[in-house]
Amino acid sequence: MEILIAKNAGFCFGVQNAIDKAERVAEEGRGVYTYGPIIHNRQVVENLKSKGVDVKDDIDEVKEGDKIIIRSHGVPKKEYEELAARGSEIIDATCPYVKHIHKVVEEKSKAGYKIVIIGDPSHPEVKGINGWCDEKAVIINGEEDINKIDSKLHRICVVSQTTFNEEKWYSIICRLVRMAREMLIINTICNATELRQKETMELSKQVDVMIVVGGKESSNTRKLFEISKSNCDNTIFIETAEELDLSLVKGAKKVGITAGASTPDYIIQNVVDKIKEIDVENEKVSS
Amino acid sequence: MEILIAKNAGFCFGVQNAIDKAERVAEEGRGVYTYGPIIHNRQVVENLKSKGVDVKDDIDEVKEGDKIIIRSHGVPKKEYEELAARGSEIIDATCPYVKHIHKVVEEKSKAGYKIVIIGDPSHPEVKGINGWCDEKAVIINGEEDINKIDSKLHRICVVSQTTFNEEKWYSIICRLVRMAREMLIINTICNATELRQKETMELSKQVDVMIVVGGKESSNTRKLFEISKSNCDNTIFIETAEELDLSLVKGAKKVGITAGASTPDYIIQNVVDKIKEIDVENEKVSS
Ligand code: F3S
Ligand code: F3S
Repeated sequence: MEILIAKNAGFCFGVQNAIDKAERVAEEGRGVYTYGPIIHNRQVVENLKSKGVDVKDDIDEVKEGDKIIIRSHGVPKKEYEELAARGSEIIDATCPYVKHIHKVVEEKSKAGYKIVIIGDPSHPEVKGINGWCDEKAVIINGEEDINKIDSKLHRICVVSQTTFNEEKWYSIICRLVRMAREMLIINTICNATELRQKETMELSKQVDVMIVVGGKESSNTRKLFEISKSNCDNTIFIETAEELDLSLVKGAKKVGITAGASTPDYIIQNVVDKIKEIDVENEKVSS
Repeated sequence: MEILIAKNAGFCFGVQNAIDKAERVAEEGRGVYTYGPIIHNRQVVENLKSKGVDVKDDIDEVKEGDKIIIRSHGVPKKEYEELAARGSEIIDATCPYVKHIHKVVEEKSKAGYKIVIIGDPSHPEVKGINGWCDEKAVIINGEEDINKIDSKLHRICVVSQTTFNEEKWYSIICRLVRMAREMLIINTICNATELRQKETMELSKQVDVMIVVGGKESSNTRKLFEISKSNCDNTIFIETAEELDLSLVKGAKKVGITAGASTPDYIIQNVVDKIKEIDVENEKVSS
């Protein structure tokens, strides 16, 4: 039996990078915290805690000497200053793609552009971005928000939350282009999600059985399941290896595995290990 | 009878400015030429000729000491150099709005943006603009041209021919935004046409008779006629004062006048003078 794991299954580059950083810092000693949960996955947060990385949600909890990890979402500019003022050591794990957006909005707002962020105003990433242009961005989450933009503006710079839906982005942009004479439009949607979906599409065409690993509540994982199911009838949706009914995999020549954005690598590995129990002699794992 | 003349009837600011410049230079002496006809209106060109301003269409005709007027459309950068190399004196009457586009495409192409011009590739203004980014712009005149854009481009700067249709511009832009991650979109459509139409709309609502002056072949004048007719049934379309049938104007309390983009002021004035013949005692002209 051949087991094929999608290259971009599970965490994106930015989240993996933040977790790796947190683990490395924890090895150096105590007093290590992430500023907010590193990802919306209880197991990952618990796992980090067991390695000595706890969560501080509120800046008021931060004490002198704390090592504070800024997660991949990033934070507003003034929170760096507040964290530093409290005497904590900042370990910046902001995803470089998000950091790039911070730079753009800081530079362009200084150059006289009104900043528009296409995204969910309650999302920490969006709040973080807004904190790099003095919290003066107009935030647009849907076409109904477009009238928030002052029609007398001349220069607008538009960026997106990295996980915003691409088609929704384009339909908002088409309305936005009428709002100002000069528009700098920077599509900062991250392709991690698209890549994961594309790979799932390709992989599910080649295998007899496809396993999608991720939270049942996770919309990005459910999307992977739908994509896979459309190509491969034998698609199985599980949260953990324990859920996997091996009788469904038995007899398959090729098994594909993909995973949602908040599925840690070790859960994927557990699934692989369980499948290998079926035929320990005749295995071949490619990734 | 009250005669109301639309403020933006006839020439736009840029064309009027070029004609004024040509007339001033002609007063100073001989050897004055426009580089190409100043506007597509035979009477205007003939009138300038009678004042000593002839047309040179070909750069090879330009001689040392010639005073060469660059018309409102502008010309490519290298033609300034060629004109200077021939020892001519350049009088630059490029419309400042067009000059601004030249600056933008020169600056942005140097900054690494691929330039896209939305406009008619055979129009002298578009050729001129392209001549400020080393003739390397992609020129798009309709949605069918969009596939001319290399899909691997990262940064695109889009400008428009000043007389491009606004709705057509937006529908092209909506397709374009998918072509690159970073787009600087500068709507350089001039509002002279829109202003002329808006004023015609307003004026035609207030008057008993509306007179639209301009070439029967001129699409922008015909558009003014349609707008006016929709508000004022007594709308008259004439090319010159001679064509005006005064019996149609007699008895009106308010007469409005507007004119297409290539109608010179003196033709409008002739129309005013002819109407005044009706009631020389009781006149009042506002503009
Ligand atoms: S956090 Fe992840 S989703 Fe993209 S922007 Fe960074 S790789
Ligand atoms: S030539 Fe006229 S149409 Fe506008 S761009 Fe200049 S005022």
